[in-house]
Amino acid sequence: MGQNMQVCLSKDPVGIPVVDDFEIKTSPIPDAADDQVLCRTLYLSLDPYMRGQIAGRHLSGSVAPGDLMRGETISEVVNDGSGFVAGQLIRCMGGWQSYSLQDPTMIAPVSSEISPSSFALSVLGMTGLTAYAGMVWQAEVGKGDNVFIPSVTGAVGSVAAQICMTRGARVVGMAGGPEKCLGALESIGVDACIDRFEENLTEKLEEYFPDGIDVYFDLVGGTLLSDVCQRLANYGRIVLCGLMAEYNRKEREPGPSPGLLIGKRAQVSGLVVYDYEARRDEFIDSLLPLILNKTITQQEDVTFGLSNAPEAFCRLMRGENYGKVIVDLTQE
Amino acid sequence: MGQNMQVCLSKDPVGIPVVDDFEIKTSPIPDAADDQVLCRTLYLSLDPYMRGQIAGRHLSGSVAPGDLMRGETISEVVNDGSGFVAGQLIRCMGGWQSYSLQDPTMIAPVSSEISPSSFALSVLGMTGLTAYAGMVWQAEVGKGDNVFIPSVTGAVGSVAAQICMTRGARVVGMAGGPEKCLGALESIGVDACIDRFEENLTEKLEEYFPDGIDVYFDLVGGTLLSDVCQRLANYGRIVLCGLMAEYNRKEREPGPSPGLLIGKRAQVSGLVVYDYEARRDEFIDSLLPLILNKTITQQEDVTFGLSNAPEAFCRLMRGENYGKVIVDLTQE
Repeated sequence: MGQNMQVCLSKDPVGIPVVDDFEIKTSPIPDAADDQVLCRTLYLSLDPYMRGQIAGRHLSGSVAPGDLMRGETISEVVNDGSGFVAGQLIRCMGGWQSYSLQDPTMIAPVSSEISPSSFALSVLGMTGLTAYAGMVWQAEVGKGDNVFIPSVTGAVGSVAAQICMTRGARVVGMAGGPEKCLGALESIGVDACIDRFEENLTEKLEEYFPDGIDVYFDLVGGTLLSDVCQRLANYGRIVLCGLMAEYNRKEREPGPSPGLLIGKRAQVSGLVVYDYEARRDEFIDSLLPLILNKTITQQEDVTFGLSNAPEAFCRLMRGENYGKVIVDLTQE
Repeated sequence: MGQNMQVCLSKDPVGIPVVDDFEIKTSPIPDAADDQVLCRTLYLSLDPYMRGQIAGRHLSGSVAPGDLMRGETISEVVNDGSGFVAGQLIRCMGGWQSYSLQDPTMIAPVSSEISPSSFALSVLGMTGLTAYAGMVWQAEVGKGDNVFIPSVTGAVGSVAAQICMTRGARVVGMAGGPEKCLGALESIGVDACIDRFEENLTEKLEEYFPDGIDVYFDLVGGTLLSDVCQRLANYGRIVLCGLMAEYNRKEREPGPSPGLLIGKRAQVSGLVVYDYEARRDEFIDSLLPLILNKTITQQEDVTFGLSNAPEAFCRLMRGENYGKVIVDLTQE
């Protein structure tokens, strides 16, 4: 009988996680009860919010030492039953393990139109939905908007940038290092990309946004948000979504001064992607044609083998990924 | 020939202003040129934003030592001309002085329906428009909303509270000391009023908002905003408008952590009342009937005589006013 490999948190990371903060356990592949579906993991999504779960301050719950790491997966149904057939691809919260038992009401079939199927975790999945909800439904980005997107080579930022451009907006991104900046210009097609390691943010924002920033998609938090507010156009929209700058810290950072937000007549809204679950089909219907005709692309940062998931996650936490971080388990 | 009394800033206040920070000057009443209207001041509006002008960080410009203090007034036209007739009441930026020369294109007649005419500075003027724009146009307060309003006995807060109640919302206020709290309950009619000197804010917010705060009208800034965010309902709306907590300080205070705003899906918007000038008639048409039938009232905190304006302003800055602060010059 086969084994189920699981990646668990071994201890609370101090700051940016290291591989030793995780441990690999193996156990027999579990048997499915009558009301369960046994699923084999094919692709595992790694995302910054997982650091928030480890820190115990994420809406979706927490992960303590000893716990299996949680995460969304594309999995394959192992046996017929509960309305599913063997070999069928589904999206579920499979976690960092090779097999999972799922409640059939909590899993969703993956449309065969979505290819590669890992796109159901990225551009047509949670991170794409986050980008779409933020830029289309919350900020209502349109023609002529000047949009600033940090982490523009990341899973959410890269899709957000492309969505904005299809709507006639001008996008300036930010990324760490010349390689990522070049990628943002050439693959994603942003107008300009600020290198956060090498360039002076205030100067570059002045240069690229002479009339101010109309829309800021905050995937980062921290001091960047206050810096951006200084350059915000009047009535500028800010969608607060991610906190990459503080996920690895103990303390939450304060936000921009309310006086600054008043002067700019800023419109700020918090985004939690779970709120948009009911509109997922609408989002897919809108984005799928643009993906099929290659208007929008998704760069994936793929790591092969579940045992390499900890290192892939640590790279993500160090900001070294390019595109959506996926662990590919298809070959094990 | 009569004299024009003027109140000027004498030196930059340290913290809360004192009477010595102002000086009174007299000069002959000026003569109007052909394109000017000489106006006699009847009522002068005193407002917290003036401290921001003194500090040099208000949108409307700054006031330096030696400068005439600026402010909105109800004035009386002295001589016929430029389309105005002697004795006509107008609203203008007359400043802290007994007479002013006005550009006829910059002054607005006061409707005879507005009685007392000082209401054109308060509930039917700038502070009322601020309250209306914040609660009706920005927060869109409606039936069932649980609204929290600090400085609820102040010029903006008291009107905002009453507007919310006419729209079916439940309002809890905050004020300094038992007398103001009693006034808020009895005259304004709020559901409850937190005494910011005597009561524990967090406990009281929990008690009065078991389901969270739907709308917060931030007239204060400072740490209160972060405390309120902790108790915000999901999708709670925050209108940022005033900064009373920091007007007397050198440094701007940071705002609430973006992580907190994300978790609550907060909707935050900055309000600058000047943006609503074009909608002033719409606001007056909506509010005037409610004032005429006494549904909405305006408490005025009246000081007689321009020479007492500095002390009235210092009282306002110490939070000792109750209602709209007006200086009455009609008897001098």
